[in-house]
Amino acid sequence: MFQALFQTFDDTADPTLGASRLRDLRAALKAQDLDGFLVPRADAHQNEYVAPCEERLAWLTGFTGSAGFAIVLPDKAALFVDGRYTVQAREQVDAASFTTVNIGDSSPSDWLGAEARKGARIGYDPWLHTPAQVARFTAAVEKAGAELAAVAENPIDALWADRPAPPHGAVTLHARKYAGESAEKKLEKIAAALKSDALLVSDPHALAWAFNLRGDDVAHTPIALGFALVFRDGKPELFIEPVKINRKVGAYLASLAALAPPAQLAARLAALGKAGKSLSFDAATAPAKLIQSFTGAGGKLDTAADPIALMKARKNLVELAGARAAHLRDGIALTRFLCWFDAKAAKGKLSEIGAAEALESFRRESGELRDISFPTISAFGPHAALPHYRVTDKSSVTIGKGVYLVDSGAQYFDGTTDVTRTIAVGRVSKRARRINTLVLKGHIAIARAVFPRGTNGAQLDSWARRFLWEAGLDFDHGVGHGVGSYLSVHEGPQRISKLGGTPLEPGMILSNEPGYYREGDFGIRIENLVAVEPRDIAGAERPMLGFETLTLAPIDLRLIEKKLFSREEKDWLNAYHLRVRRSLAPHLDAQERAWLKKATVSI
Amino acid sequence: MFQALFQTFDDTADPTLGASRLRDLRAALKAQDLDGFLVPRADAHQNEYVAPCEERLAWLTGFTGSAGFAIVLPDKAALFVDGRYTVQAREQVDAASFTTVNIGDSSPSDWLGAEARKGARIGYDPWLHTPAQVARFTAAVEKAGAELAAVAENPIDALWADRPAPPHGAVTLHARKYAGESAEKKLEKIAAALKSDALLVSDPHALAWAFNLRGDDVAHTPIALGFALVFRDGKPELFIEPVKINRKVGAYLASLAALAPPAQLAARLAALGKAGKSLSFDAATAPAKLIQSFTGAGGKLDTAADPIALMKARKNLVELAGARAAHLRDGIALTRFLCWFDAKAAKGKLSEIGAAEALESFRRESGELRDISFPTISAFGPHAALPHYRVTDKSSVTIGKGVYLVDSGAQYFDGTTDVTRTIAVGRVSKRARRINTLVLKGHIAIARAVFPRGTNGAQLDSWARRFLWEAGLDFDHGVGHGVGSYLSVHEGPQRISKLGGTPLEPGMILSNEPGYYREGDFGIRIENLVAVEPRDIAGAERPMLGFETLTLAPIDLRLIEKKLFSREEKDWLNAYHLRVRRSLAPHLDAQERAWLKKATVSI
Repeated sequence: MFQALFQTFDDTADPTLGASRLRDLRAALKAQDLDGFLVPRADAHQNEYVAPCEERLAWLTGFTGSAGFAIVLPDKAALFVDGRYTVQAREQVDAASFTTVNIGDSSPSDWLGAEARKGARIGYDPWLHTPAQVARFTAAVEKAGAELAAVAENPIDALWADRPAPPHGAVTLHARKYAGESAEKKLEKIAAALKSDALLVSDPHALAWAFNLRGDDVAHTPIALGFALVFRDGKPELFIEPVKINRKVGAYLASLAALAPPAQLAARLAALGKAGKSLSFDAATAPAKLIQSFTGAGGKLDTAADPIALMKARKNLVELAGARAAHLRDGIALTRFLCWFDAKAAKGKLSEIGAAEALESFRRESGELRDISFPTISAFGPHAALPHYRVTDKSSVTIGKGVYLVDSGAQYFDGTTDVTRTIAVGRVSKRARRINTLVLKGHIAIARAVFPRGTNGAQLDSWARRFLWEAGLDFDHGVGHGVGSYLSVHEGPQRISKLGGTPLEPGMILSNEPGYYREGDFGIRIENLVAVEPRDIAGAERPMLGFETLTLAPIDLRLIEKKLFSREEKDWLNAYHLRVRRSLAPHLDAQERAWLKKATVSI
Repeated sequence: MFQALFQTFDDTADPTLGASRLRDLRAALKAQDLDGFLVPRADAHQNEYVAPCEERLAWLTGFTGSAGFAIVLPDKAALFVDGRYTVQAREQVDAASFTTVNIGDSSPSDWLGAEARKGARIGYDPWLHTPAQVARFTAAVEKAGAELAAVAENPIDALWADRPAPPHGAVTLHARKYAGESAEKKLEKIAAALKSDALLVSDPHALAWAFNLRGDDVAHTPIALGFALVFRDGKPELFIEPVKINRKVGAYLASLAALAPPAQLAARLAALGKAGKSLSFDAATAPAKLIQSFTGAGGKLDTAADPIALMKARKNLVELAGARAAHLRDGIALTRFLCWFDAKAAKGKLSEIGAAEALESFRRESGELRDISFPTISAFGPHAALPHYRVTDKSSVTIGKGVYLVDSGAQYFDGTTDVTRTIAVGRVSKRARRINTLVLKGHIAIARAVFPRGTNGAQLDSWARRFLWEAGLDFDHGVGHGVGSYLSVHEGPQRISKLGGTPLEPGMILSNEPGYYREGDFGIRIENLVAVEPRDIAGAERPMLGFETLTLAPIDLRLIEKKLFSREEKDWLNAYHLRVRRSLAPHLDAQERAWLKKATVSI
């Protein structure tokens, strides 16, 4: 039978330990003369997926969501989560120990500013916060007459008896045939772009891109935890645990950079600071600890942005060709799954977990699957109304008649995928069909968009909402996030969102995923990945851009109201489905091919 | 015959005086131990229209554009203008004395940072710059090892022999039947919104709104130059030249506020600063002089935004009713003009100036015209490709066959208007018709927009560009600016622009004016004013908004390609024209009515 190797369905919620752990932590704080402590859900790189040893927030509170923050004071403790996690927090956390606060109502720093007593010393682990976060908390506590104090060792680590060891995933080289550009050339480009003496690379995704390396330290994203220094003049320095680097990889990396263990980096930065060097850094990921080491020794910070993020976002021709190959492979797997799903779900015996296991199994059949790019969201009915639903043994339901949403993705050497399809099981309501059509019209508006160079994602985001807005509806997430190349499925700075100020440039890969969510009822999302491409237009007076849709899988025609489409929208959908059919059919068996033909019929 | 009372067509360009005036200024600077001087085109309120006595930039350089900046150094002088004014600057300015710099290529502060010699003292008039501007120049010159020095008297004023006296336009009260809310109530609301001890009101438009007063100090905008202090607790203080206030007005204003001459304000702010008060201010208009007086005495600045701008932007029901009345009156005048224009222009004897004079005359016929809201842009052929074209005796051409653009507006007690129509004279090219249709489709997309509360103008701006973008075309200005109520025709913070971050709220009035400009060939712009209004939509899950189009005048059907319209677009245009016809016809003579019927025929 099908199985999932890259995703678990455990429900680790256990509110019962919260009280005792909180008591232990308070005792430890008191011993260190601290009146409070900040517990972010973060590692030293502000990663989205963190190693198990970094799950201090879950250890302390029981809360396992991907974003959260706790503050422990002598007589109060609060857990801050965003809107999508308030229900989950209620179930996972001991309410007698922790007050759950919606982060939209009060930020952790505002809360701390209001609650900290005069003279209090609030501890924090300087590896787990960026300088800007520290500055925000410092300002808040100083207003309250309290102070913020960096701790040398995180007190949770000493209390956490069975804390897992830090990950030591093997570092591998990302082959030139996938990367399309040598690490030597990339490092030269980075050095040439620097306005400061040195750049601290603290984002492991940037590290992976710059050195053409990959790792195995966290789930779903093939990164190696580590840092680097790139100099305007001089050989780069790479800080990765030596145990993760075998001889062959080490020999190659040594040709690019001086290698050293991460534990030496703080001292190295202090030496640079003492020598009066200027340093630029990635403000979104650099740990305060390292920046404090540098400035504490007299170093000058440069506020220019880290140049790597933008270089990494603009995929080269080899990466784009890889993305197309990855999407063809992924489209075959998803389409085979969808065919299988239609037959299976109709029998009323398929669970959300069963569907997720099957989908991963279809993906593995190519023999090329490295990982899934995030835990599959397999959501039926009201579960689909939770945009970040995680299916567990406890939550999983049998898929019945109604709307099923599956959001999933894969990691292949040649590319990262992310795709959502919303599927009708049996007859669905006219209302769901109508709204799904409005969402699809928005999706098509983005897919068909043509825009001048210089346009940013904030200028396009509303195009995907227009039809929902006309019906008085909307959804509360951006239309698209950037996607890496065998890297993170969530990559910046490119995005299609109200906040997306970065101009879109050729080669950038983004998701196009408008949706609609009706709490307790149903949810819809239609997601393809797209790549920004130049567009030649007869008579054009400016350089123009558009999107190439990369994802290849049918969009459920049983969920649309044909009459709501314009001629252009129908043309787009028919052309897309023709391309899907022609691309995938040769790779399917006869039954699947027959299913696909029907699923992609011209409307 | 027709005449213009509110607009001149003088061409005041006279490059011949530049050299001697520059020489005189340099001598005066030397006498004051200064090595340079900043000459902005600004008054003490950063007004768009300034009094003649403030036209120091024009006096010095000859340049009469509405935006510009000069920097005078011992051996160099530069005039900075934006792209729309480079041609005009070349004609008006002595190139041997002043280098004209496109402000897009180098900002004045960057230029000064590069050109100022070490140890140089660069003077500036602290009344004519905001604190942020002073900070930017200070940072630039300090990097160059030079210093910025405030002067007590502007050295140009001593050299400018025939400098006009400051304006002493009479202050009038803006009747409650137009304002819709008493000044007492407004001042209470402002005080209640303050988080600081006091608010410095430096924008005369804000002053006019808050105190329900109007003035006659500058062209086209009925403002009284002056300042005010509004306190969280205590009576407001109003700083306006006493000579401008007659006994009746003075008695009323004295009931609202303590009255004092503006010359006392700096000392008053110093006293507040000394007393340890906190002050908020409008960063876009407050003169550095006043802020320096306050902080120099130890006062604490509050960075919270001035609350008046947003209150003023949200028109109340009385102001909205006034706007509708003003637009009906204005639409009658414009439509009568357009009917007259069609007959007159066909004969090939009408000049751009003649058309502007006629339009103002039609507007005056209502007996209600207070002023035009800006100099009419009357532009034929290539002139229309200049979005801010000002017609002069020298530039004015006879209107022949082709595309004519007229952008104009009026000030009435009950409202301010701004409208642009693009008109076909004789047969025009298919290309012009096609592009005009694309512009109109963009205009209609904004007019028909429905969006949830919280949406800002940046999210809508691209809707007006989509059809141009599909053809590889675009235009380089925002889609819409805010408009005041018998105040400025350019009002913030509301705008429809890539930079428009302020959420649109019911009652805000904005322009909807996409365009297209082809240098040396032709220009197109279609502009109506719109008011944000709540929208009831069946089944809506969120509070939704839309636009009520206020402007009433036909859009030229001879310039459209019917087949490019969707059903919805045709429906909008036909419904708009039906509304125009029904509203205006009763106020027209038989000939005009016949013309309007044809001009608004259903397509």
